[in-house]
Amino acid sequence: MRESAPTVAPSTDTQPRLNRRQAAKVRTRQKVLDAARGLFAERGYEPATIRDIAKGAGMSTGAVFANFQDKAELFEAVLTEDMAGLAEVMLNGAGDGSTRDRLVNALTAGYHGSIDQLPLFQAIVARSWFQPVAAETRQRAATQGLTDVISDILRAGIGKGEIKQDADVSLLTELTWDAYLSNYRRAAYDGWTVDQLADHIGRQVDTLLAGVSAK
Amino acid sequence: MRESAPTVAPSTDTQPRLNRRQAAKVRTRQKVLDAARGLFAERGYEPATIRDIAKGAGMSTGAVFANFQDKAELFEAVLTEDMAGLAEVMLNGAGDGSTRDRLVNALTAGYHGSIDQLPLFQAIVARSWFQPVAAETRQRAATQGLTDVISDILRAGIGKGEIKQDADVSLLTELTWDAYLSNYRRAAYDGWTVDQLADHIGRQVDTLLAGVSAK
Repeated sequence: MRESAPTVAPSTDTQPRLNRRQAAKVRTRQKVLDAARGLFAERGYEPATIRDIAKGAGMSTGAVFANFQDKAELFEAVLTEDMAGLAEVMLNGAGDGSTRDRLVNALTAGYHGSIDQLPLFQAIVARSWFQPVAAETRQRAATQGLTDVISDILRAGIGKGEIKQDADVSLLTELTWDAYLSNYRRAAYDGWTVDQLADHIGRQVDTLLAGVSAK
Repeated sequence: MRESAPTVAPSTDTQPRLNRRQAAKVRTRQKVLDAARGLFAERGYEPATIRDIAKGAGMSTGAVFANFQDKAELFEAVLTEDMAGLAEVMLNGAGDGSTRDRLVNALTAGYHGSIDQLPLFQAIVARSWFQPVAAETRQRAATQGLTDVISDILRAGIGKGEIKQDADVSLLTELTWDAYLSNYRRAAYDGWTVDQLADHIGRQVDTLLAGVSAK
């Protein structure tokens, strides 16, 4: 994911052409974001200082603050960009196959695409437990794309007749997402590899789907 | 829970009798713990300062540091005491009835017994995502009593023939515990009441048990 993120361009075709000064501003902003991403991914939130982020971007702390109000805003910008990238990784990873396989493949692709940024993920979840409501609302919006991948796979499963018509998609999505996130702690503290995470989420998905399988 | 915790006495009968100086030391330590609990429960971890904890206990910061090395150690001591108390609350709350009802009743009792300490719970989970491995190991030991309540209810359900013999108790316990914890965020950000939490964990337990019900 770290490789793909910088290629994420300003996102709409309707965006007006930038003049030279505006283009320079966008480039500077992206440089700060990339440096911040690298440091958050390596250290997490607290130990990543604005000073080191500025150093990593090859600019002054003043230049950083010209683009972002504070570290929290910088973190949110990285998070928003990365979660959008990760949702795409999951979606592409789902592939064809049974609902069970599509879910497990998507989530495994998610682990593959994020494991080298483990401290960033730990910081995202830790902060989600203690932040102002407005920040929480923005964070939920940023992770919505990821939970949508899960919901869409489940809904497609209902459409194909693999999952019971009356399955509670939103509840199943929530339980799957909680399990997915929780497993990162195994990677952080127990040294689990992506293969171990994949195996575990596979068994968790089996358990979650056992009661709603139409077979 | 806040009411019951101070009554938790040094725990074994084999403990030698304390002389007057030792007894005073135990009382001082407990006073600090109670003041810290109150402040953590009200504010969470970061905003609770040693200075305010000392003030709450009616002593100097030096006296606090004579008993606890730092705020982290103090937090861990509160957490260990409170999780033991909460495990008991859950166990007593389980009551008789079906495996489903016992699980939901135990977890609902857990919400009842902890909701007035919501910021403490938020701090516990937030810290669990970013702490030294040794601290994480101690925290897992402290919450083991809670997950044991869930496992024991599930195993009893297998014994009664309500849950399939081959159900994966450890996986189900983990999924139930993740759901239980995750719901605290609804209380923190969405203002959910204990009744709403109870209703939600009920639906989550139904989903988790649907695939392992022996009926």
